[in-house]
Amino acid sequence: MLTVEENETLTRTGSGTPMGDVFRQYWMPALLSRELPAPDCPPVRIKLLGEDFVAFRDSAGKVGIVEPRCPHRGADLFFGRNEDCGLRCVYHGWKFDVDGRCVDVPNVEPTIAERLRPRAAVRALKTAEAGEVVWAHFAEGDADELPGVPDFEFAAVPPEHRFVGKKLQQCNWAQACEGGLDTAHFSYLHAGVGGGGKVGLHEAGRPTTPGDGNGEPLRLARFRWLVEDGAPRFSVLSHDAGLLLCAARHADDDCLYWRMTQFLMPNHSLTPGNFPEDLSLANTWVPIDDTSCWIFCYAWHPDRPIGDKERHRLVAGSGIFAETDEHFVPVRRRENDYLIDRELQKTESYTGIVGISEQDQAIADSQGPIADRTREMLCQTDLGVVRFREMVLQATRDVAAGKAPLGAVDPGAYRVRSGDAVIAADAPVEEVVRHRFGVRFAGRGAVS
Amino acid sequence: MLTVEENETLTRTGSGTPMGDVFRQYWMPALLSRELPAPDCPPVRIKLLGEDFVAFRDSAGKVGIVEPRCPHRGADLFFGRNEDCGLRCVYHGWKFDVDGRCVDVPNVEPTIAERLRPRAAVRALKTAEAGEVVWAHFAEGDADELPGVPDFEFAAVPPEHRFVGKKLQQCNWAQACEGGLDTAHFSYLHAGVGGGGKVGLHEAGRPTTPGDGNGEPLRLARFRWLVEDGAPRFSVLSHDAGLLLCAARHADDDCLYWRMTQFLMPNHSLTPGNFPEDLSLANTWVPIDDTSCWIFCYAWHPDRPIGDKERHRLVAGSGIFAETDEHFVPVRRRENDYLIDRELQKTESYTGIVGISEQDQAIADSQGPIADRTREMLCQTDLGVVRFREMVLQATRDVAAGKAPLGAVDPGAYRVRSGDAVIAADAPVEEVVRHRFGVRFAGRGAVS
Amino acid sequence: MLTVEENETLTRTGSGTPMGDVFRQYWMPALLSRELPAPDCPPVRIKLLGEDFVAFRDSAGKVGIVEPRCPHRGADLFFGRNEDCGLRCVYHGWKFDVDGRCVDVPNVEPTIAERLRPRAAVRALKTAEAGEVVWAHFAEGDADELPGVPDFEFAAVPPEHRFVGKKLQQCNWAQACEGGLDTAHFSYLHAGVGGGGKVGLHEAGRPTTPGDGNGEPLRLARFRWLVEDGAPRFSVLSHDAGLLLCAARHADDDCLYWRMTQFLMPNHSLTPGNFPEDLSLANTWVPIDDTSCWIFCYAWHPDRPIGDKERHRLVAGSGIFAETDEHFVPVRRRENDYLIDRELQKTESYTGIVGISEQDQAIADSQGPIADRTREMLCQTDLGVVRFREMVLQATRDVAAGKAPLGAVDPGAYRVRSGDAVIAADAPVEEVVRHRFGVRFAGRGAVS
Repeated sequence: MLTVEENETLTRTGSGTPMGDVFRQYWMPALLSRELPAPDCPPVRIKLLGEDFVAFRDSAGKVGIVEPRCPHRGADLFFGRNEDCGLRCVYHGWKFDVDGRCVDVPNVEPTIAERLRPRAAVRALKTAEAGEVVWAHFAEGDADELPGVPDFEFAAVPPEHRFVGKKLQQCNWAQACEGGLDTAHFSYLHAGVGGGGKVGLHEAGRPTTPGDGNGEPLRLARFRWLVEDGAPRFSVLSHDAGLLLCAARHADDDCLYWRMTQFLMPNHSLTPGNFPEDLSLANTWVPIDDTSCWIFCYAWHPDRPIGDKERHRLVAGSGIFAETDEHFVPVRRRENDYLIDRELQKTESYTGIVGISEQDQAIADSQGPIADRTREMLCQTDLGVVRFREMVLQATRDVAAGKAPLGAVDPGAYRVRSGDAVIAADAPVEEVVRHRFGVRFAGRGAVS
Repeated sequence: MLTVEENETLTRTGSGTPMGDVFRQYWMPALLSRELPAPDCPPVRIKLLGEDFVAFRDSAGKVGIVEPRCPHRGADLFFGRNEDCGLRCVYHGWKFDVDGRCVDVPNVEPTIAERLRPRAAVRALKTAEAGEVVWAHFAEGDADELPGVPDFEFAAVPPEHRFVGKKLQQCNWAQACEGGLDTAHFSYLHAGVGGGGKVGLHEAGRPTTPGDGNGEPLRLARFRWLVEDGAPRFSVLSHDAGLLLCAARHADDDCLYWRMTQFLMPNHSLTPGNFPEDLSLANTWVPIDDTSCWIFCYAWHPDRPIGDKERHRLVAGSGIFAETDEHFVPVRRRENDYLIDRELQKTESYTGIVGISEQDQAIADSQGPIADRTREMLCQTDLGVVRFREMVLQATRDVAAGKAPLGAVDPGAYRVRSGDAVIAADAPVEEVVRHRFGVRFAGRGAVS
Repeated sequence: MLTVEENETLTRTGSGTPMGDVFRQYWMPALLSRELPAPDCPPVRIKLLGEDFVAFRDSAGKVGIVEPRCPHRGADLFFGRNEDCGLRCVYHGWKFDVDGRCVDVPNVEPTIAERLRPRAAVRALKTAEAGEVVWAHFAEGDADELPGVPDFEFAAVPPEHRFVGKKLQQCNWAQACEGGLDTAHFSYLHAGVGGGGKVGLHEAGRPTTPGDGNGEPLRLARFRWLVEDGAPRFSVLSHDAGLLLCAARHADDDCLYWRMTQFLMPNHSLTPGNFPEDLSLANTWVPIDDTSCWIFCYAWHPDRPIGDKERHRLVAGSGIFAETDEHFVPVRRRENDYLIDRELQKTESYTGIVGISEQDQAIADSQGPIADRTREMLCQTDLGVVRFREMVLQATRDVAAGKAPLGAVDPGAYRVRSGDAVIAADAPVEEVVRHRFGVRFAGRGAVS
């Protein structure tokens, strides 16, 4: 439970807020590279942390993210012409490059234009592209002094090994992120229903249960373990970029089934649910404003390409990927109650909502536009959520004190992995982590 | 005319407001029983007096109306599973019964769950069903100490004698209720037009005029009297649950045509317009919030079943029943100007709006989201409205003083009737009332 | 650039604001005469300067614009019956004439009605019709004491010489009006694109360029001059009703191409772009509220009828006329990004938006609901805009001091013209004006 003040601090991200100041110390996914598919393609409106921008790719392929307001008379540069290495305001032809510099003022005499131009720059974010994502940084000053973008594994693998996407979430970023750190809900929210009780995992009207012949024995058994043990025990390790959240459930033969999630500051998560042969999955929750966010979704495999069928399912919207329209708005969303099917809820699916992503989305939205954390009854399975809040609130104090928040200048600390393991019940958590990830991919400092 | 303060008092019904406190002393229609048609059927969102609830019918058929917020992490119980005598949150499986008690906390060890459960109750309204309506009471404490639901005749007759429904009104409850107490407007708002002047009653493009061969002579004559005498004289009698509003118009042969309306605290009305052979009609205006309300509509006959044709007309939306969509939203409503037909208004209908209910609805909405009663020019035909306001405002003072407001603990006082009479012009109002209702059904204390 | 206070003063027009007080000193276009096509036709809702009214044409053809609220119980007179020289409230039959006088109170005894009626008047604006436009004046008191409506030429010519219309603008009136005073943007916003650069004027996917065979040589050459000289020099003359804004561009053979715009207090403009043989065009920007306005559009020729083809193009929405729906809402508008076509923007049109009017509309809307004039970089081509602001702000001081603002009581001062001229480069502006308009039509006091 948080105080009113702590909840405000955690959830408000606009300019000048404590958490807004934290976010502005990190590289942030701003849009997918494919939203700006070619040099001089149409500009795109984006909103980040409550601030409006226009993004464009110039003739040289470089992405600019600039304040959308022409300094001359305030016209919206979204309507601008993207031409010849700059975005030109269509009102009187003033032109700006990807760094926000004014490069042409054609409606006055050239000598006057030369005097006006230096004062006519528009604010521009620093940009970089990695992993088919356009990253933005709010830092002012020289781009060369910035740290690199976080060194996520998904961005380092060959394109054939990777698929990225995004989807709209219609609530505050923090509660959606908390949902990603809360593997306990897998035993309920994503459960199937059958034979009078919960069964396996349920997605898209197609429960994946033992015996359906679609998977490996281990992959099937874990759905049973998720359902059979709905009160997992949490252990949390911290490292140089965030937290490794480890949740243990009873498995067969005196073993434990461990699901291990990475939280990476300030708003990334690497999900559990994968054994080494499975795809890895991760998310970033980027505030649009304080009551909506983009969830960037990443799928990849360190060692092999994503297969055609696998890729097709991701594109169609399965697992952490949602089925969306062309604006990345989920088809099943707040306005239509996620197309909840009460008959399905009775007979097949715990929620009656089709899709893992949509189930997560629905329950986060349902906590309200901004969840009220002053009225809660937290319990043992909420340990990850509690530690997330502590770490993020600590970052607000660090930034207020002039310190770089955890991970912000340490891109290498983001080269970590998440995943599952089945191991003897008496193995301590550090051993489980070493066994599954080795010291290297657990997170620097998590285990030695 | 009211002061600004009085108008606020009359119209604001949220938690902690004076009128809100009054409403919370009475049983209130919350939804139709058929909105929860079977045990374990889908839950339904409702809003009452500005507060959100989720209503569900449990496996035993009992209705619960509970706060929609899971105390664990604040997820919305509307998405819950209605299963095995309780509503279960789909986030982590916490479960609540119709009285709001937490009956399962499955995501922690059983011993911890036992400690959590008593503190994890959700707020629940008291509920009862009568007359195919689910009634709710905001009282805390023991249900056994509550008075019974008001003893309306419509709830006491056999189901074949009754039809109930509801419809959305897009304005404050009080002005809509005032419309129901204002029989004077029948001479205008509901009039037909023909031959250069007003004629009879006009509904659904089908004026009911003398000579159309559809009715009894008396029933037809009254439409003529309504039009011929547009300035009725009002007398108001008070009784143990409210007011009996009596309006006299000139009839034929030195007789008066009396229309007598019941107002029952705090928000019910029994309409006039019926002779003993006709169906009785009544309404309740239940605030959803301060700018919209549900109008519950009741039709019944004390002594005979409703005929098939009669019932079909009610279901289709005639008289006080509106033609609505499946969410009880009128087809003709504020957003579409009630499909006003200006040609119809010129030639057949005083309003150009089809439907008695829709005419009432339009004119109440047209007074604004909350009518401004500080600018009015009340006259003699507004006497009922004036007395209504006085009685309701008195109730706010009673409740503030710790007294039960009129009728709140006296369900028997609601067994009254409304209706019409034609009688010699020199009969005093008390004699008219005794003649039409007898002492019993006038309202306890109205006449002796 | 303005201060925050000046920008508020310029843009806020509600009752009691300084600029609202200015507007209320002038006759204002309220609606088109054809919106009330016949005696006793349906009433029309209008909003002027943030205030709601209902407009109706009575049985004698006279237009009333009255407060839409019945003084009896506050019902909306929009739903009233327009009958027999008055608008009758359908709730209880109270009736009002075009001057707001209450002429019938039928729901009470006649003697009481006689006492009520004088106190039951509703507020009514003064109205007049001229140029197929219904004009309204907020003055109280005797209509005979009002000045005449402004003596615009478009209102004085025969109907065959004229076409009038209106269209919705979804932003504050002042920035839209400023767009009309800013002929500099013609070199950009309305330009066509072709062969790697700007070409001519672009409308409706049909660039009008030299050589297309559709016009006179002069008419074609000016499109080239507009594009070739994108930094026109401004001179501003003032006169008894406003400003004559003169902008010079290089033409061929040591001549200048002059475009001369009239600004007439407080919100009218006569556009440039016409030689004597062309149609004249003008606009009025009438605040609906502070974030939307009606733009009234006038086309006329002093000396000849509008041809069939010309008229057809105006009706369809070309030039200053927009393509609108039946509610005068543009088909291409804020909600659909004006149907911007980015491919068209690359290849044919500077904006990618079809229609001169829609290009103007888009760029004004894009400045925000109310443009922020505290952050601007004004330059020489903004001189007209600067002088407009000064003149309007001066009017607020005049009105505050009890003086009639410029032009308000001087209808004859509005008989002016705008237009273009090509003349030797060394001619002073006064000579250009005399040459094109003569002393008479320049504006009284502009030149002598």
